[in-house]
Amino acid sequence: MRIVVLAGGIGGARFLRGLQQAAPDADITVIGNTGDDIHLFGLKVCPDLDTVMYTLGGGINEEQGWGRTDETFHLKEELAAYGVGPEWFGLGDRDFATHIVRTQMLSAGYPLSAVTEALCDRWKPGVRLIPMSDDRVETHVAVTLPDSGERKVIHFQEYWVRLRASVAAEAVVPVGAEQAKPAPGVLEAIAEADVILFPPSNPVVSVGTILAVPGIREAIADAGVPVVGLSPIVGDAPVRGMADKVLAAVGVESTAAAVAEHYGSGLLDGWLVDTVDAATVERVETAGIRCRAVPLMMSDLDAAARMAREALTLAEEVRGA
Amino acid sequence: MRIVVLAGGIGGARFLRGLQQAAPDADITVIGNTGDDIHLFGLKVCPDLDTVMYTLGGGINEEQGWGRTDETFHLKEELAAYGVGPEWFGLGDRDFATHIVRTQMLSAGYPLSAVTEALCDRWKPGVRLIPMSDDRVETHVAVTLPDSGERKVIHFQEYWVRLRASVAAEAVVPVGAEQAKPAPGVLEAIAEADVILFPPSNPVVSVGTILAVPGIREAIADAGVPVVGLSPIVGDAPVRGMADKVLAAVGVESTAAAVAEHYGSGLLDGWLVDTVDAATVERVETAGIRCRAVPLMMSDLDAAARMAREALTLAEEVRGA
Repeated sequence: MRIVVLAGGIGGARFLRGLQQAAPDADITVIGNTGDDIHLFGLKVCPDLDTVMYTLGGGINEEQGWGRTDETFHLKEELAAYGVGPEWFGLGDRDFATHIVRTQMLSAGYPLSAVTEALCDRWKPGVRLIPMSDDRVETHVAVTLPDSGERKVIHFQEYWVRLRASVAAEAVVPVGAEQAKPAPGVLEAIAEADVILFPPSNPVVSVGTILAVPGIREAIADAGVPVVGLSPIVGDAPVRGMADKVLAAVGVESTAAAVAEHYGSGLLDGWLVDTVDAATVERVETAGIRCRAVPLMMSDLDAAARMAREALTLAEEVRGA
Repeated sequence: MRIVVLAGGIGGARFLRGLQQAAPDADITVIGNTGDDIHLFGLKVCPDLDTVMYTLGGGINEEQGWGRTDETFHLKEELAAYGVGPEWFGLGDRDFATHIVRTQMLSAGYPLSAVTEALCDRWKPGVRLIPMSDDRVETHVAVTLPDSGERKVIHFQEYWVRLRASVAAEAVVPVGAEQAKPAPGVLEAIAEADVILFPPSNPVVSVGTILAVPGIREAIADAGVPVVGLSPIVGDAPVRGMADKVLAAVGVESTAAAVAEHYGSGLLDGWLVDTVDAATVERVETAGIRCRAVPLMMSDLDAAARMAREALTLAEEVRGA
């Protein structure tokens, strides 16, 4: 079975690990979000790609969900001693190596997809990880600074990591997405997929950014195979992160049903909501999307595997319908 | 008193620390060798400048004489895990920060001299440290590989650090030196100096490379102030490093007297040799260079300070003559 997964960072990576346990023989292609990429200290940093790579490759800091295990922060300390920031982005000494290798390869002319493949040669994540695009796309967020009242457009990471989404996101713009082309292999993987899954990743700044690359949304809609997603919202709150903040920016309420409607029945065939949201199943089905209520808390690997199994089961239901 | 010192790495840095103790009120300008600079992992590394900066700024690994104190090597371990080398050059996590800041500033268009000044803003070495040139100069060494018999020109660091000078240096070429211009401030500092000192640094690949930048040798010869050097050779061997290997490449025997003659009386007014080389004083003086035999082992800071005092005393002798 060929499965294509559109993945953001932590939620996507943990779901993928569950999917690998649930479908050990599946051929999994991950289309990774690069909208949260950022240039720091002259280096190209791809947080979501790395979170997937480190998580599936056994190098992740399990507790925090991002960054490397057994990490130190001496380099960052020294940069701060030089007065060189930003200090709010936590790059560890081991993690730096990934960005240095990536930057060197990009400077040598390799596209990001080839670089990602080379990095995965080491990590052996057990999936094919492709960035959504080789072109530069960086999500920016429009905010009004509370102190000065100044309206400013800032990089997503500054919004997410430095401000911790503490102010309203007035607009979320994947800068460069309109001109971006899907990376080599992305459209082919979608066209050859048996199932397409949206993990409980952020529907705006993770899955939404991938879908903003012209051609990807259309390819998924036209693939003619079950497209099943898992709600990142449980009850009225995101399972992790601050998805509600960026959902508000696109005028979507922070509920499992509203996110399904935001994707729409033209794209989505099936949707899993958490059991606490069982009452919303009918609303989602009214929108033309097959819906089931199952436990959606990825408390551990087994829970993630059960969620993946439920998603695959729903995909088969959709296929048989 | 304005003192100009031409410095390589470890020997130069330790001598400078002694000089600061010996002449606490002196205004010291250090013209640093950049011929051992190397690009590694897309970063500009300036080992000699950094050794001076770390040593005088209190950040040096005292035992090895280069690199940072309290250092870790996680980044390097990870680069090796990615299969990215070279592995033979020991960059630590803290040290990497210096190279990242430098590379970022160079990419932004600052010349190396401005970058070095900015780095020194943090380290406060107590001297003005100027690279010999803002232009790229990289010393290369011609060798014959023992296994294949292949004649090859390799970067100085590859010769020095990877091969540990285990094969003969057939030629030493400061690539780019001929086209290089002295960095801003270099010629001015020489012109305004009261004394010019050559520490016991490598006469070929450290002091020799600085002198290879057109204009510097002439400015020193024409400065009209005492120019005093300290022999890096004690007995028949270099005090540290492998100076004998590169002296052979330029046809100079590895003795204190031969090094003085190599600099020549047109450049050098005074020369300190170690007490074990007292018998050679006459030969040096015959060459027109005032010479004294004093202890030249920089076993500790006090010993380095005594050496600096001897050099300044000899300079005053020269001036009074």
